[in-house]
Amino acid sequence: MNGNHYDVAIIGGGVVGASIAFQLAKRQFRVIVLEKERVAGQASSAAGGMLGAQSEFSNESPLLPLALKSRAMFPSIAEELKEMTGIDIGLVQKGMLKVAVTDEEREALQRHYEFWKKFDGSARWLTIHEATEMEPNVSCDLKGVMYLPNDGQVSASDLSVAFAKASIVYGAEWREYTEVVNFLKEGKTYLLYTNHGTMAADAIVIAAGAWSAQILERTGISIPMYPVKGECLFVKTERPLVQATVFAKNGCYIVPKKENKLLIGATSTPNTFDKKVSVQGIKRLLEQAQQLIPSIRHAEWEKAWTGIRPQTGDGLPYIGVHPEYERVWIATGHYRNGILLSPITGVLVADLIEGKGSGEIDLAPFSVTRNSHVTHL
Amino acid sequence: MNGNHYDVAIIGGGVVGASIAFQLAKRQFRVIVLEKERVAGQASSAAGGMLGAQSEFSNESPLLPLALKSRAMFPSIAEELKEMTGIDIGLVQKGMLKVAVTDEEREALQRHYEFWKKFDGSARWLTIHEATEMEPNVSCDLKGVMYLPNDGQVSASDLSVAFAKASIVYGAEWREYTEVVNFLKEGKTYLLYTNHGTMAADAIVIAAGAWSAQILERTGISIPMYPVKGECLFVKTERPLVQATVFAKNGCYIVPKKENKLLIGATSTPNTFDKKVSVQGIKRLLEQAQQLIPSIRHAEWEKAWTGIRPQTGDGLPYIGVHPEYERVWIATGHYRNGILLSPITGVLVADLIEGKGSGEIDLAPFSVTRNSHVTHL
Amino acid sequence: MNGNHYDVAIIGGGVVGASIAFQLAKRQFRVIVLEKERVAGQASSAAGGMLGAQSEFSNESPLLPLALKSRAMFPSIAEELKEMTGIDIGLVQKGMLKVAVTDEEREALQRHYEFWKKFDGSARWLTIHEATEMEPNVSCDLKGVMYLPNDGQVSASDLSVAFAKASIVYGAEWREYTEVVNFLKEGKTYLLYTNHGTMAADAIVIAAGAWSAQILERTGISIPMYPVKGECLFVKTERPLVQATVFAKNGCYIVPKKENKLLIGATSTPNTFDKKVSVQGIKRLLEQAQQLIPSIRHAEWEKAWTGIRPQTGDGLPYIGVHPEYERVWIATGHYRNGILLSPITGVLVADLIEGKGSGEIDLAPFSVTRNSHVTHL
Amino acid sequence: MNGNHYDVAIIGGGVVGASIAFQLAKRQFRVIVLEKERVAGQASSAAGGMLGAQSEFSNESPLLPLALKSRAMFPSIAEELKEMTGIDIGLVQKGMLKVAVTDEEREALQRHYEFWKKFDGSARWLTIHEATEMEPNVSCDLKGVMYLPNDGQVSASDLSVAFAKASIVYGAEWREYTEVVNFLKEGKTYLLYTNHGTMAADAIVIAAGAWSAQILERTGISIPMYPVKGECLFVKTERPLVQATVFAKNGCYIVPKKENKLLIGATSTPNTFDKKVSVQGIKRLLEQAQQLIPSIRHAEWEKAWTGIRPQTGDGLPYIGVHPEYERVWIATGHYRNGILLSPITGVLVADLIEGKGSGEIDLAPFSVTRNSHVTHL
Repeated sequence: MNGNHYDVAIIGGGVVGASIAFQLAKRQFRVIVLEKERVAGQASSAAGGMLGAQSEFSNESPLLPLALKSRAMFPSIAEELKEMTGIDIGLVQKGMLKVAVTDEEREALQRHYEFWKKFDGSARWLTIHEATEMEPNVSCDLKGVMYLPNDGQVSASDLSVAFAKASIVYGAEWREYTEVVNFLKEGKTYLLYTNHGTMAADAIVIAAGAWSAQILERTGISIPMYPVKGECLFVKTERPLVQATVFAKNGCYIVPKKENKLLIGATSTPNTFDKKVSVQGIKRLLEQAQQLIPSIRHAEWEKAWTGIRPQTGDGLPYIGVHPEYERVWIATGHYRNGILLSPITGVLVADLIEGKGSGEIDLAPFSVTRNSHVTHL
Repeated sequence: MNGNHYDVAIIGGGVVGASIAFQLAKRQFRVIVLEKERVAGQASSAAGGMLGAQSEFSNESPLLPLALKSRAMFPSIAEELKEMTGIDIGLVQKGMLKVAVTDEEREALQRHYEFWKKFDGSARWLTIHEATEMEPNVSCDLKGVMYLPNDGQVSASDLSVAFAKASIVYGAEWREYTEVVNFLKEGKTYLLYTNHGTMAADAIVIAAGAWSAQILERTGISIPMYPVKGECLFVKTERPLVQATVFAKNGCYIVPKKENKLLIGATSTPNTFDKKVSVQGIKRLLEQAQQLIPSIRHAEWEKAWTGIRPQTGDGLPYIGVHPEYERVWIATGHYRNGILLSPITGVLVADLIEGKGSGEIDLAPFSVTRNSHVTHL
Repeated sequence: MNGNHYDVAIIGGGVVGASIAFQLAKRQFRVIVLEKERVAGQASSAAGGMLGAQSEFSNESPLLPLALKSRAMFPSIAEELKEMTGIDIGLVQKGMLKVAVTDEEREALQRHYEFWKKFDGSARWLTIHEATEMEPNVSCDLKGVMYLPNDGQVSASDLSVAFAKASIVYGAEWREYTEVVNFLKEGKTYLLYTNHGTMAADAIVIAAGAWSAQILERTGISIPMYPVKGECLFVKTERPLVQATVFAKNGCYIVPKKENKLLIGATSTPNTFDKKVSVQGIKRLLEQAQQLIPSIRHAEWEKAWTGIRPQTGDGLPYIGVHPEYERVWIATGHYRNGILLSPITGVLVADLIEGKGSGEIDLAPFSVTRNSHVTHL
Repeated sequence: MNGNHYDVAIIGGGVVGASIAFQLAKRQFRVIVLEKERVAGQASSAAGGMLGAQSEFSNESPLLPLALKSRAMFPSIAEELKEMTGIDIGLVQKGMLKVAVTDEEREALQRHYEFWKKFDGSARWLTIHEATEMEPNVSCDLKGVMYLPNDGQVSASDLSVAFAKASIVYGAEWREYTEVVNFLKEGKTYLLYTNHGTMAADAIVIAAGAWSAQILERTGISIPMYPVKGECLFVKTERPLVQATVFAKNGCYIVPKKENKLLIGATSTPNTFDKKVSVQGIKRLLEQAQQLIPSIRHAEWEKAWTGIRPQTGDGLPYIGVHPEYERVWIATGHYRNGILLSPITGVLVADLIEGKGSGEIDLAPFSVTRNSHVTHL
């Protein structure tokens, strides 16, 4: 059994599981990651990769300190991962234009701006003239524009794979196509039954994204989580159309990627694990993108895809211990902030496992028992 | 030289070249097909495969008798090709709904109907009620509907490949990735210089689609031809939405293919060989398709592609002898009727080469010298 | 609940589930198929499509009558499915050459021939000369050749999709990306909890291929099943190299498909759900194929893929009722005969559900409780 | 005509054309690149990306100074292109193991080592023990190993695209799908007839790789050039197997790329433009790779592809002026050193066009008229 006995077994090989594996392996834990399909095979590869610590929040939220801290970690993470794996995670720090296309959106955007104005002075309200001077291809029919210079972006799949490869350099093991059917406690050890045999671990981390609820149900609890399908697409232009990410208040965003590709996302279809790209999803994204950057209509079509993002009842992720099993940790429900939050989540979960606590960060809002919706089956 | 001496060398391995090769090889000619890329690599694979002998014509045209004859050949061609190659060309004979979505289109459609009314009685003018009874998923906001029960469809790429494979069964040779750089007459023989060596043939057929003009220029003549890019796409539904092909007067068509796929085509961008799929092309096709069949918005996206179709100055193909070189034949410019016209073109060209003449069909309107636009370089 | 109440819920949308859905829907049952990914997304699309009722069996086996009956059903099934769905399942009835490449294999092949000799006289032992006369591209270094004229082949994915589409024509519903997490009996009804909500059904069929054991474990029983990965590849030749399927005694087979493609299969790697194509798998298949048909080395590479086949402890499928739940039926473990056995399995399971019994076929050898290996968890 | 009048028209958008466009645009020339298909669509994207300035040469050659100079340019080029385009060209400077697998190869390798020993002391002869200590996954059955620490590698397609994008930043224009049919001199201007209209330029650079001979033929000269097809493939391992590139004396090389991918190349099939991947090509590459790194057999198959490389009669590229047309420059025939030589070729051609001469580099060996094989048609 020794060969199959680990300090920590992580269920889920997406960006969150990979970041946790990276932090734990770096700290000498003997780690195994159990992934039912491929590394970063779901939402982690589908994501736009925006680091929208400011653009995603317009109100106080317990998630805010995590988002800001995590965003600040990217420059050093990028360097460390490049060094260890040779993978460039594509960190771009050219800011974000958050834009309104209707009067209602303009009002919401102004409140969003008021919220950040006091923060560090970086958020700026632009006139349309200033905006089109900064980004000449952005439509001059916009109703309002906020500029967030510190919200950058990365390549989501490169980040995920780099975390995984770096964890392997530190000694972590990965098993793809390995689905955990069940796990049982035997003394101080957890036995994990998978479709590729049984493994033993002292601790377990459930980081299975939208599939986490299903795993938790087998441990006897039901938490308020649901999948949200997001459709994205890639188009390609002859010249770069924008430097900054352009993010409309209605949810449509355009992220400039390398080789003059533009990533356009994302629709939101709740309550489905269906990974089909729909005709109406593509149509809507193309319409919205063209409203933001009219000359996108001349772009070349590349491809479309979907990701299934894990949303929770109150919109906050679950980061904490299982209510009934000690040393079973949960890290899921990051919805569309998984890429942004992956560095800090890795550190937080590793700290919890080491018994270090979360320092100045209050993890109570992310506890699994924070609301009455958890059902004991 | 014997091993490289052929009766006929066909330049171009699209559906027209393949059909000619099939007819000639069947008649015992020693045939070689020289294709600069792959069999049916251009417009022949990109086509929607409609057999629109009636839907494409609303006026007298010298092409009409060819179109009707060619359409009538499909059932036996389908059987013959299936027998020889095992390939099912996907012949579907469930008719076509030609529809109008504006008042102007309705008037044009009525004239189109008047034109065909006398023909064989098959064309029917449907009330919107009749149309939606026949095809319940077709929009009830249409302005006018004509039903053409005899305009069917095939799988364009299967047809093209089946012609090619059948020609090989009859002894034809095919050379892919073989570009003809030049050809010269030496006595009674033509020498073809290619990027894969030199070949000799007694006769040549130029059937290179949109690339024919370029080849003809090297023979000293310039004909009024230009490429027209067409974009198409595939979507997939859970259940069949339509039985018949739905073809709007504005050019958008929806062809039901096997496995509940719908082929939606086609845009028309003249004067480009650029094979990029554009954002605006996709957007327009999806809008038009949704106008015809609203529930298409729930369909699953499959893919998009383009074809470069060979159009001529007066819209008629060139089928005839080269004005300066005897035994150099030209068969090109079929624009978007290449699939429909391929069977008859194969027979006509084979007949010409055999010296049989074209029977009751008058080929004068298709001669290369029919208009003054041919320039001797 | 009415809208979600079905007569039968089938878990698994592969060829077996689709065939059962087709038979049940044809008999007016209200059927829903729950598929965790896509229709025919696993082994059903990966299969070579051989109908090896004779080539796969060289000894008495309870499976033999099923295999022969099922093979005999294909011509009429092909016609029925083409009629209903427009899909040509690619039935080819040009026989199979079963070949030996070593002396040991020759002896085994001779015993194989002895077994079938008495049967219907169709099996023939060929001299190498006869074999190469029949198939000139087959190596003349073979040690022994048996010809089985009645073992044909189909397109595995076309068959699977055609069953599914035909079942829909008869009223069956299909839910893709729908995973059954658990099911419970409530009175006379089964409640199926899925990642897309709850459904109710009077009866359940588990036809989930290699994933069936996992589902059965949640019902409290463990059966001796294991996955066997098989790698296959497609190559393409300019001319057809063989008419018949060539099947080596060592397991390598070459199946001629349309458009001069050759399907080469299959490796066998037990105990893995890993769908990666391995370097050594490709290397071995190419070596073995070249030994059978030397000129295959000039073929064009197309692609490689894998399928995960459901094998059982004694090599026989499970077709019968669940040992503890009445009206829960099991149809799985067809290993590499799933395509061949799909028609008969559909009929047998539909008969069982109708209470008709299995006629002259003895289903005892396929019962879930046939051996002591079933463990009650 | 003004809008279509350029200082320099470059025919060919591969890595050589792109590097020349980059240098010229940087020096304020008004440049247009005419590419018949896509940027870097042929050999430039297919290449392994080795910078084998020492591994490729074991004798004196006029190409040697260019190769060494060009290799030395990569670190600064990488930085400049990353800065301008955001594209990381994947420069890896971990050296190369040049290995012998037979006794004959060992002797040749020793002579190769003798040649470089005096150079700068960097080349090292390793014992098998040293070699396997450095690269534990390399076979211990090798017969001889030379280590070249300064021969690195890049991502060939990223380099090519980065050159193109950087040239655009400096003002160059690119036309894809634009084939030059002919060009004529009119006064001091060249008129280029393309399938997308006519353009005018004061100078022309022919950098069309394997297609250059065809273009030159239309200008009346025939040069001894021929295409050489090379097949390559990608496999993927769980952990990195090697740090350095492993390059066998028999031509097989294994280049470690990011994400644990290994690029295995390359076969050599002369005199074909055929881009099909052959069964025997794959088989041979897999056999050779497994001989060098046995554990590669467990790797995952990714894909295979081909490139058509431009070889010349004496193995040296053509870099110089057209023998009959002034201000028509030729830069082609780099065979399998196009990636390595692209930086220096860009600088040399830009210098020639500026009238600067080639400094200490003697370009006579690369002149188009260097040998009697040039034929005036």
